Amino acid sequence: MSTAYSQLTDTFDRISRLNHLLSIGAWDMNVMMSAKGSEARGAAMAELGLEVQRRLSAPQISEWLNSAEQESLSEIEQANVREMRREYEYATALPPELNEALSIAGSRCEVAWRQQRRDNDWEGFKDNLREVVRLSREKAERLSELKGVSRYDAMLDEFEPGMTSETLDVVFDDVRSWLPDLIQRALEKQQRAPLPYLQQSFPQHQQHALALDVMKLLQFDFDAGRLDVSVHPFSGGVPTDSRITTRYDENDFVTSLMSVIHETGHTRYEQNLPKQFAGQPVGLARSMGIHESQSLSFEMQLARTDAFLAIIAPLVNTHLGTDFSAGALAQRVRHVAPGKIRVDADELTYPAHVMLRYEIERALIEGDLEVDDIPGAWDERMQRYLNIDTRGDFANGCMQDIHWTDGAFGYFPTYSLGAIYAAQLFKAASHSTPTMMQQIESGKLTELFDWYRANIWQHGRRYSSQQLITRATGKSLDIHAYRAHLESRYG
Amino acid sequence: MSTAYSQLTDTFDRISRLNHLLSIGAWDMNVMMSAKGSEARGAAMAELGLEVQRRLSAPQISEWLNSAEQESLSEIEQANVREMRREYEYATALPPELNEALSIAGSRCEVAWRQQRRDNDWEGFKDNLREVVRLSREKAERLSELKGVSRYDAMLDEFEPGMTSETLDVVFDDVRSWLPDLIQRALEKQQRAPLPYLQQSFPQHQQHALALDVMKLLQFDFDAGRLDVSVHPFSGGVPTDSRITTRYDENDFVTSLMSVIHETGHTRYEQNLPKQFAGQPVGLARSMGIHESQSLSFEMQLARTDAFLAIIAPLVNTHLGTDFSAGALAQRVRHVAPGKIRVDADELTYPAHVMLRYEIERALIEGDLEVDDIPGAWDERMQRYLNIDTRGDFANGCMQDIHWTDGAFGYFPTYSLGAIYAAQLFKAASHSTPTMMQQIESGKLTELFDWYRANIWQHGRRYSSQQLITRATGKSLDIHAYRAHLESRYG
Repeated sequence: MSTAYSQLTDTFDRISRLNHLLSIGAWDMNVMMSAKGSEARGAAMAELGLEVQRRLSAPQISEWLNSAEQESLSEIEQANVREMRREYEYATALPPELNEALSIAGSRCEVAWRQQRRDNDWEGFKDNLREVVRLSREKAERLSELKGVSRYDAMLDEFEPGMTSETLDVVFDDVRSWLPDLIQRALEKQQRAPLPYLQQSFPQHQQHALALDVMKLLQFDFDAGRLDVSVHPFSGGVPTDSRITTRYDENDFVTSLMSVIHETGHTRYEQNLPKQFAGQPVGLARSMGIHESQSLSFEMQLARTDAFLAIIAPLVNTHLGTDFSAGALAQRVRHVAPGKIRVDADELTYPAHVMLRYEIERALIEGDLEVDDIPGAWDERMQRYLNIDTRGDFANGCMQDIHWTDGAFGYFPTYSLGAIYAAQLFKAASHSTPTMMQQIESGKLTELFDWYRANIWQHGRRYSSQQLITRATGKSLDIHAYRAHLESRYG
Repeated sequence: MSTAYSQLTDTFDRISRLNHLLSIGAWDMNVMMSAKGSEARGAAMAELGLEVQRRLSAPQISEWLNSAEQESLSEIEQANVREMRREYEYATALPPELNEALSIAGSRCEVAWRQQRRDNDWEGFKDNLREVVRLSREKAERLSELKGVSRYDAMLDEFEPGMTSETLDVVFDDVRSWLPDLIQRALEKQQRAPLPYLQQSFPQHQQHALALDVMKLLQFDFDAGRLDVSVHPFSGGVPTDSRITTRYDENDFVTSLMSVIHETGHTRYEQNLPKQFAGQPVGLARSMGIHESQSLSFEMQLARTDAFLAIIAPLVNTHLGTDFSAGALAQRVRHVAPGKIRVDADELTYPAHVMLRYEIERALIEGDLEVDDIPGAWDERMQRYLNIDTRGDFANGCMQDIHWTDGAFGYFPTYSLGAIYAAQLFKAASHSTPTMMQQIESGKLTELFDWYRANIWQHGRRYSSQQLITRATGKSLDIHAYRAHLESRYG
């Protein structure tokens, strides 16, 4: 006799197979698709998305969940049921008309934004955004009732289960108290050691070969993934076939190399999720914040250490025919330069960009700020946090990101959560054995990755983010480790 | 109020969106997929395939079809309903258990065949094939009852609607009567003019650039398609984003170039199907035979003419840094060399390979031949048609093709139907205006392609193959045009 639990695992397995083709379809859209293919592809992705939604919200799932919760299950099976319920709840939380209205308004806003941003056209953009905000508030209201938390917290929960604005406020109040001063000190220190000249031009095929070698060093499994080129770097695909992309700028090899290391961090996580739970919710990556903590453990924690830069300097020089020292690479990757654009920001100024977006989007969703007030709120904070005047420059100000156009309110904080978790995790990993740092210095990274596998990757969604981080580091979200990391690198 | 017809068009639109992702998923499997990705991909493709099957066989479709056939519809809408009914009938013709058994036996046979062929292991292979044949006979029996035609004709109909073995017998009896002699004459003539030496080595990137230029000449729409590399060349994707592939052999640029021209023929058809019926059955390509007639119109009819070779010789020489004459290219592409392998066969010996397969598979399905008798039947015919001894060489004999491993009995004849249709169509096109051949000689192909668009591409499945060919050429299937073409080129 089949149990309710086995009915559920079969159903979720089948749903994950459909999601597999949605992932490959999305990757293909960004990497391979022909210009004229977009309309039919959009319709195909929407149709399969609807089918997934239909299966996830079938009333039978609710019955099976109720029964499964009475069955005798192992601890990880119980965690699986918990995650299934979460998916079912999100699939059924909103009336279909609201989902459809949000999808249409989001598409319209995003499509128009691509041109409006080029034209610095805030007036045109804000009308579309207003509708997205209106519908997102309605969504937040409904999720808030369902979850019994505030409206913004309900939005946040979708990306980072269990996270609250109360916790984020503690974090950002702390960051706000020391970050501007630390940036100032970093800039002063930097004046005494000018940026080395690495801006030679290197052809794409040399950069590509270098990227592949660095991925190999980072133990990317090339039998279960690949590297391609797209306009915006991203990671996609499925755990058995993880697809990462980069963009090569012939005049700036460092940015591309660091983005490859970043995406490789995401991929190592995906490639090492628990295989015995492949296709099940508990076998997926924990959250956006935890995912980002893996990419940032690679890109910011590991890759910007002297030890790692000493390992890759010879690879760089071999592939590019240069003679850069590890020290010069270090100066380049730790260079601080406050600017208007988040995606171009350095490690130290990045949290300022996130903080200001968090403050604005939270107020927007809670109804404390209107769309018309965004530019003013933006300009004031950019001045305060980064000493930059953004007045009138909407394209490089509040219109620079795609997130809000689609109604993805609650996503931005996960970038900073990732950075904080990454600092905690790398510190814990470094101290986990007496020989760890020596190992890294001698270019042997297996011990480090074993630690990440044992503490993060293999657990999927078995534990909550808080449990996961506490088990791995002995502390829950810990802003002090992050501050100490930034102080020691930039202070 | 929505009509039954509009319910049907909506349903088939949605099904075509799912098929879109099956096409892209299949292309990706052959071009991009990582080694470890195959198991999960196979499961994902099967799941979405089941969903398509489920939707196609929904009882509501039968009701809507019955109602729609009473509604007042235009002629092309009626053709659409006819094609919908055909799809519904095939989707519901077989019991699910038989479909599943066939799918499992086919997979098992194909997977094992990949190694067994390398090992020349007929004994191992035949046990798996016997099961595929047994189930295919059961399928043929059921389709035969449904269609009221013989068992083999019922299998044939799936690939080439309306085609019968009665017609094929007339065709192949004719071919059998003159082909061996024509091959003999061609070989004798050839001895007097030895093959020019074109077998220099050319790097892939030069061949790729040449291929792109030739595709451009053939008016391939690069905003609606792309060229990539795979182990076996094929065309896939969707009409708005047609994907063709080739394989570059550094020591044989001609084979790859001709395969690109072949696949471009398939793609021009796909890219020019009636857009107003995109997503509907009537908007699809007519049949496998008609599809092949387009690729062969390009590869065999157009590309092997002196006129075309004179156009591409300069492109070849520019990209490869050579000095080949059009005459030398002509000798190369019209070189006749009887051999064991179908996919390597030249234009003249190719029909012999198809004929022998037709005779064997028809007897297999009708129950007149058993699996154990295949090698003997094969060897005897290879000797008779091509004067080649294949005894004991199963790998390059009856185990060379993938088709039978999967139970695709009835497919092989469409290769020859395509060749015959292509000869008829190119002849009709050439004579359609007084200036056509001059146009082609001066490298202007638009008039030729306009003819194909007007006579074949834009019609989708509006007409049956017979109607389509008769409208375009004034005759139905006409073996004489094909023979005359081969006689004039090789005799």
